[in-house]
Amino acid sequence: MFASVDLGGTTVACALASADGRLIAERSIPTQSNEGPPAVLARIGELVKELAAETRGTPLALGMGVPGLLDVERVRTRFLPNFPTQWRDVPVAATLAQQIGCPVFLLNDARAATLGELVFGHGRSVATMLFFTLGTGVGGGVVVDGKLRLGPLGAAGELGHQTMVTDGLLCGCGNRGCLETLASGPAITAEGVRLMKSGLAPKLFEIVRGEASAIGPKEMAMAAAGGEATVRAAIVRAARYLGIGAANLVTALHPELVALGGGVAAIGNLLTDTVRDEIRQRVRMFPPDDVRVERSLLGDKAGIWGGIALAMRRGEI
Amino acid sequence: MFASVDLGGTTVACALASADGRLIAERSIPTQSNEGPPAVLARIGELVKELAAETRGTPLALGMGVPGLLDVERVRTRFLPNFPTQWRDVPVAATLAQQIGCPVFLLNDARAATLGELVFGHGRSVATMLFFTLGTGVGGGVVVDGKLRLGPLGAAGELGHQTMVTDGLLCGCGNRGCLETLASGPAITAEGVRLMKSGLAPKLFEIVRGEASAIGPKEMAMAAAGGEATVRAAIVRAARYLGIGAANLVTALHPELVALGGGVAAIGNLLTDTVRDEIRQRVRMFPPDDVRVERSLLGDKAGIWGGIALAMRRGEI
Repeated sequence: MFASVDLGGTTVACALASADGRLIAERSIPTQSNEGPPAVLARIGELVKELAAETRGTPLALGMGVPGLLDVERVRTRFLPNFPTQWRDVPVAATLAQQIGCPVFLLNDARAATLGELVFGHGRSVATMLFFTLGTGVGGGVVVDGKLRLGPLGAAGELGHQTMVTDGLLCGCGNRGCLETLASGPAITAEGVRLMKSGLAPKLFEIVRGEASAIGPKEMAMAAAGGEATVRAAIVRAARYLGIGAANLVTALHPELVALGGGVAAIGNLLTDTVRDEIRQRVRMFPPDDVRVERSLLGDKAGIWGGIALAMRRGEI
Repeated sequence: MFASVDLGGTTVACALASADGRLIAERSIPTQSNEGPPAVLARIGELVKELAAETRGTPLALGMGVPGLLDVERVRTRFLPNFPTQWRDVPVAATLAQQIGCPVFLLNDARAATLGELVFGHGRSVATMLFFTLGTGVGGGVVVDGKLRLGPLGAAGELGHQTMVTDGLLCGCGNRGCLETLASGPAITAEGVRLMKSGLAPKLFEIVRGEASAIGPKEMAMAAAGGEATVRAAIVRAARYLGIGAANLVTALHPELVALGGGVAAIGNLLTDTVRDEIRQRVRMFPPDDVRVERSLLGDKAGIWGGIALAMRRGEI
């Protein structure tokens, strides 16, 4: 069997799958990254061994999605934006391999999700695809000719960091006007909060009982579905920028598939339809009718499946 | 030997090269596309045969750059934007092959220039590169893993048709705010004309003796070099947008090379330096120091060399 770990800011998800791609076991624990890498990695190692023991199997390899940048060999962390600084330059692969007793392969989490969608999701029959992970940040992955493009430093595919507005809002990466500043969960939520506090979103107010901290993309999608035009426009605006970001890469690469993953993709049709429409509006050099725009088939499990794929391929992507 | 034809709106360039890539002969004639495909193609066939006879050689294959879109098999024209409508759906490859007596392979002219730069220019030692042709339009090509990406319809790589400004100026392609509307020769020239007519560019006025029709990117580069700050700013503005367009693709693909070709690239360092600087400003997810930004090594001969490469590869790209 093969093991997968998806290391998140708040939760570590772990899964085991058979060689023919059936999920055998799955469990999550809180990350508590502030306890430091040794403690957290020890807990992850225990979790994998525990699941393996319960299912009476031995993992042949473990694939793991890591929320940040890795070194070129993909065995150590380089920088994890939402983790304490002690998580820099941690030999994650070697540490876990020693604990679990099988080879461990790492990949940036958005790229892992892309691989998951490619191998087990909508990407199964495609050669060229774009994947956007829409969450606290906007990550991504690019697949050309069946191969995930990592670039020489392993950091290619950061589709959320395309500049959409020349002098736009400050992005976490240091640039201004990145797609992430316009279409991430926090970006969409911020506009929902502004609308509610400005008295422009009574339905949203009702849904969250006036609690700004309860607003998220899902609550906004509910308000939009309930007929709140202002909130709907906020979602459409974010989706249009996402559509432009996708369209620009469609123009450059003409992929067969644009897949949307991450929590924000739960907005559903209003998001996918708008992205699809924007691609049709923007891509004029060829009819982009054959470019499918789909919400990730694997939902929030794309990363976990990517880890399984990574383990099955022994790190070769 | 191998033959190459670069079909342009005003000029047809033709060249012969030896199997080891030396240029043997070269000649140009006016296109006069309004005379219709049969007459123009007959003249091109004559020109190739004439050059071959003069050099006592027989072309093994001909590669040809065509200014527009081709059918999927790359043997017929589909749509040539600057040619009369009778140039739609013309079996160019078969017609010329019959006349010249060797196989003829077609490619969009910007993609042909990309191939030329890849095989004979700065791209010789790179696997992944972007090429921008900056002329009346902004065309381009994307090479991933040594392979030109054409997409299923042969129209991928149109890097001038990335949306840079959501509600920007109308583009020839039907979209708004494309890079082409900001960084093409006509786009740069239009701002030069505006500045001169508004009395904001006395140096440029001097250079063109007040003749708006004499203004072009080269004249503007002269004025900028002579210290005209307003004209310099106009060039830098276009170059910044080009840099953002390049940076977005660098973020997605992390190529080793961004090459700038076409007449506008003759602006020189002010253009390349600004593009380089913008990539450094915008790409924050990895240090893009190893991404070279260069003016095409082949200058206005990139297309002709692309035709030679296409012929040598028997149309395989």
